[in-house]
Amino acid sequence: MSPSPQPSSPQPSSPQPSSPSTGPVRLGPEAYAALRPTARATIADGFWAERRRVNAEVSIAQGPARLAKAGNLANLRRAADGETGGYQGWAPFQDSDVHKWLEAAAWQLGDPATGREAAAELTDHITEITALLARAQQDSGYLNSYYQVAKPEVPHFSEPLWGHELYTAGHLIQAAVALRRTTGRSELLDTAVRFADHIADTFGPEGSGRPVDGVDGHPEVETALVELARETGVDRYTDLARYFVDRRGGALPATGGKGTDRPGYSQDHAALREATAVTGHAVRQLYLLAGAADIAAETGDEGLRTAVERLWAEMAARQTYLTGGVGAHHADEGFGQPYELPNDRSYCETCAAIASVHFSWRMALLTGEARYSDLVERTLYNGVLCGVSLSGDRYLYDNPLHVRDGHADQEGVTPRRVPWFDCACCPPNVMRMLASLPHYLAATTADGTELQVHQYASGTVAARLPGGGGEVALEVRTNYPWGDRVEFTVTGAGDGPWTLALRVPHWSEDGWSVWLPSRNAPYSYADGWLRLTRTWEVGEVVVLMLDMKPRLTLADPRVDAARGCVAIERGPLVHCVEGVDLPPLPDGAGLDDLVVDTRARPRDAERPDLLGGVTAVTATARVRPRPAADGAGGWWPYRPVTDGVPGPAGEPITVTAIPYYAWANREDGPMRVWLPVI
Amino acid sequence: MSPSPQPSSPQPSSPQPSSPSTGPVRLGPEAYAALRPTARATIADGFWAERRRVNAEVSIAQGPARLAKAGNLANLRRAADGETGGYQGWAPFQDSDVHKWLEAAAWQLGDPATGREAAAELTDHITEITALLARAQQDSGYLNSYYQVAKPEVPHFSEPLWGHELYTAGHLIQAAVALRRTTGRSELLDTAVRFADHIADTFGPEGSGRPVDGVDGHPEVETALVELARETGVDRYTDLARYFVDRRGGALPATGGKGTDRPGYSQDHAALREATAVTGHAVRQLYLLAGAADIAAETGDEGLRTAVERLWAEMAARQTYLTGGVGAHHADEGFGQPYELPNDRSYCETCAAIASVHFSWRMALLTGEARYSDLVERTLYNGVLCGVSLSGDRYLYDNPLHVRDGHADQEGVTPRRVPWFDCACCPPNVMRMLASLPHYLAATTADGTELQVHQYASGTVAARLPGGGGEVALEVRTNYPWGDRVEFTVTGAGDGPWTLALRVPHWSEDGWSVWLPSRNAPYSYADGWLRLTRTWEVGEVVVLMLDMKPRLTLADPRVDAARGCVAIERGPLVHCVEGVDLPPLPDGAGLDDLVVDTRARPRDAERPDLLGGVTAVTATARVRPRPAADGAGGWWPYRPVTDGVPGPAGEPITVTAIPYYAWANREDGPMRVWLPVI
Repeated sequence: MSPSPQPSSPQPSSPQPSSPSTGPVRLGPEAYAALRPTARATIADGFWAERRRVNAEVSIAQGPARLAKAGNLANLRRAADGETGGYQGWAPFQDSDVHKWLEAAAWQLGDPATGREAAAELTDHITEITALLARAQQDSGYLNSYYQVAKPEVPHFSEPLWGHELYTAGHLIQAAVALRRTTGRSELLDTAVRFADHIADTFGPEGSGRPVDGVDGHPEVETALVELARETGVDRYTDLARYFVDRRGGALPATGGKGTDRPGYSQDHAALREATAVTGHAVRQLYLLAGAADIAAETGDEGLRTAVERLWAEMAARQTYLTGGVGAHHADEGFGQPYELPNDRSYCETCAAIASVHFSWRMALLTGEARYSDLVERTLYNGVLCGVSLSGDRYLYDNPLHVRDGHADQEGVTPRRVPWFDCACCPPNVMRMLASLPHYLAATTADGTELQVHQYASGTVAARLPGGGGEVALEVRTNYPWGDRVEFTVTGAGDGPWTLALRVPHWSEDGWSVWLPSRNAPYSYADGWLRLTRTWEVGEVVVLMLDMKPRLTLADPRVDAARGCVAIERGPLVHCVEGVDLPPLPDGAGLDDLVVDTRARPRDAERPDLLGGVTAVTATARVRPRPAADGAGGWWPYRPVTDGVPGPAGEPITVTAIPYYAWANREDGPMRVWLPVI
Repeated sequence: MSPSPQPSSPQPSSPQPSSPSTGPVRLGPEAYAALRPTARATIADGFWAERRRVNAEVSIAQGPARLAKAGNLANLRRAADGETGGYQGWAPFQDSDVHKWLEAAAWQLGDPATGREAAAELTDHITEITALLARAQQDSGYLNSYYQVAKPEVPHFSEPLWGHELYTAGHLIQAAVALRRTTGRSELLDTAVRFADHIADTFGPEGSGRPVDGVDGHPEVETALVELARETGVDRYTDLARYFVDRRGGALPATGGKGTDRPGYSQDHAALREATAVTGHAVRQLYLLAGAADIAAETGDEGLRTAVERLWAEMAARQTYLTGGVGAHHADEGFGQPYELPNDRSYCETCAAIASVHFSWRMALLTGEARYSDLVERTLYNGVLCGVSLSGDRYLYDNPLHVRDGHADQEGVTPRRVPWFDCACCPPNVMRMLASLPHYLAATTADGTELQVHQYASGTVAARLPGGGGEVALEVRTNYPWGDRVEFTVTGAGDGPWTLALRVPHWSEDGWSVWLPSRNAPYSYADGWLRLTRTWEVGEVVVLMLDMKPRLTLADPRVDAARGCVAIERGPLVHCVEGVDLPPLPDGAGLDDLVVDTRARPRDAERPDLLGGVTAVTATARVRPRPAADGAGGWWPYRPVTDGVPGPAGEPITVTAIPYYAWANREDGPMRVWLPVI
């Protein structure tokens, strides 16, 4: 379908949006990046508004109680009181759960939708925990309750591989930066700066000495240090971040394991500038790449830029599930071989999906290319959002794309949503992701001429465009991702021509249209960006229509796990079939016995009754008779090819596919994303 | 093909075989089992003779040096000297490597093919280590260098979940029984009995008290205790084994793990009598089932018999790879969901395949059904033998069925054969399996009327048939598994009619024939057993012809990992394609871009030059063009089904498939068992 210009129908203007502060990525005007994250977006209603309401009212609100129950706050109190012993939990990074909750609370406070009462409650918790952290901090600036309480005899930073000291420091810094940006409060930033200075004095090119040869086994401090530099204007932190990135690739001692070393688990197998594939622990890899992208943006380091572009492309093309989830291996929570994407044990850690969003968004800013925000969108709607229940109080750590018939006999293979984890990295990560979501919606170009909308949600978008237009603003109205229409009304026209750029998602590339504000308004389309440049008037409307027809999707044939299968998608949503939605099937057949008929078009099924209201998709399938097994007594599930494969038989069955993010919110049972067609 | 009686061509008789002692499973005449393992087989030449020669001359011969280097013997010396601290290795079960090597050496000594010099050398090592173990044993009978040296402060048997104390004791007992059976030496048996008595006094129905509630996290002692009872005639050990089996199902404390308990890892989630599926750690599950089968055979326990039959069927039909390998998950080295058999990360631990052979052989003896020995054969030739290099000095721990193009960038995903492991359970397990192999070749029926040949190898088979025939003997000549002909010559005719039963492998069920000793000799065939009953004369010959045509094999469609694929098999051998055998392919295509043409018959390719001499199989394939990826710039590996799948194109290519057991003996590269047909 070609874009079809249409006459505009002017809409009443709406009030200017409030101005949230710059989000998790701040780039100065001098940065070496195509875009600037200076647009200010709000989410007023619709899909994400509801998810964010639950995030604020349930997930974040329950955080302090969870952290108290799990012992995280008690650990910090013991550290503050100088007590040793009695550390609760096994993870040396327990503090990071607190820091991530603080960051989530900070972003939430920056959201104008946060009610006064909720804001007051959050502020009380933040004040209390911030004071606790300041008390727990040692005179040197060091702060880590695990090493202060559980391992006081161990020299700091001497267990780099598993100690997570820099990782935990990184989350503290991120929280402090967020709190400063949204509230202007600097107590936590003071604590973070003291710790960062201590780290810089200890490590790094200007350090007074390095107590250990290794670098932290879990990246995170890199991107945090760049953010701290952005917030404080102190370049030393960016230099230190670059130093940490460049230290990798041989610095860590081998970790061993069944006779083989595996420094790649912590991305210490090769210099990042030379690495050819994403490898090892997925969260570690992606936090490192996010940090490297930050450094490339700040410093113009071409070697790092080339590396992050190469590794992102490698990840997207060969290591990413349809849901945007990454990390195929349960063992090591890590990336697999190229195209190794098993559905029944897709690890797809919730945190890895979040890390992928962090990385992709930085790549979008660095390059201005739409595909990075394509992957951000896909990952947010599917690989991230599946990690939290619709109720907001139960989480998944790993996110499979297939749960089998008969799985119930098998212990531990069906992820079930639980309120918290012993290793509770994922829940507060979901909280900070959803709380900071508006920051991923829009950007401006470096030359200040263009306002780009990357993600679609009802609300407002505003920006200052120094290269043209000055202060400009839009109201966005949409029922996306259920509806196909996104309507933009100019509420701040600025004072000269400027460009409105709208991302056309890659799945809609051949099926979008636009209603222009006037019949002759010029526009262009290239590489995922629809651009309209004009002198705008308040009240002018642009409507982007996207292709929301349900579609059947194939994988590259090298994705063995999806051979002979299709997936159902609609808009940015990947769908799945859950056993609970199946009609009774003949002969004890189950979900794994169904074969989809690809000749029958999948259809929309609006289901306001289902899962909080979704547009489901129905498809046509038939039951595949179970083949006679081989061997006397039929004991063996393999048989000669000459016997052929029994084709599906019987009456066609209508199966309902729900959005993947909403699975596992009802009774336990089988689930499939990839549906056999043979 | 129907069986086709043929005239015999008498052969010269050969000398009576020597009489190896009863092997790893001894059943008395009163046992509740269909068969008795009393036949005596030798392997004189051919396939297994060569593998066993390498096992004896390289693997077993190198064992003492490996155990010395890895610190196992030093640990025992420290225990013997009463020293604490300085334990080498991390595994609490380091002693079991020593015990398993002793068991292997014992079986090897029982083999008449062991040369005098090698036997003397083995005997010296055995004498030395046996004395060391006796010295290390405490007055109580307890013997475990980990707890004696590394953890002297920990009460014995107080860490049941990970301590492996009973597991390690089990391997000591197995070694002692083997040594007694093949050499008559009882020093090690004395040590084992003292330890077993200590265990019986500590645990069990007649124990003086139970220091802990749990049972050992790793089964093994169960089958060892039954063997000890068989060797010593002391029923107490069998009672204790049954008690240990029946203790499972709630006795162990939960182990935790990301908020979920997982007692199933150690098969403590349900009483074995009630379990509906194999679950958890594969070796643990199968050693437990082997022990339960032993107990059922000794006691006639119908509940256990029903359970082991049910769980074997479940394992074979839904949890076993084509190679006989088991255990789909790297995490926990465990069973997966039903039909979850990923090829790229098939864990298929070498030890799990060996455990499967132990379990299946006991089931064969218990029931007399051919399918159990069908699985023994498949597992030995494929899932076990792949675990050791052709050179005998390098091992694989996990055995994937697929290594991908481009895997080289990924650390730790390509198993490479190594000389030894930090956790060295597999190497000595392979040694004892191959050393004891003759014991799995033949059996007699409980009524003493029938000599059964279960596995085919050139050599001799002899038995006493009290129900008919008395002392009878055969010579076996075959080039199996390369050749299709197995020739049996009667060398001991006995003194009355008896039955010769030959197993027809399930893959040859529709394509076998037999040459009978005379035109009118009666025979019957049912359920995998060809039976010839007659009054035999010395020199009479029976020739069994099996179907050695290469064949293409399909998996049950619920095995998602093999959808749209075929495997190549020939006789008992599963084949695979290794990258090193591919011709140059156009356009940078690799193994994962090939599509097999199933219309072209696979063909034998005798390759005396290859991998020590194999019959390879050639098949026809074409290169599948790589599809255009979706999205601007082609960054996304998924695309609309309406774009279709590109079919294979270009000239047909001949690919060579080698036997799977021989893979990874040349240069590193991709490998596939399941080959796409779409």
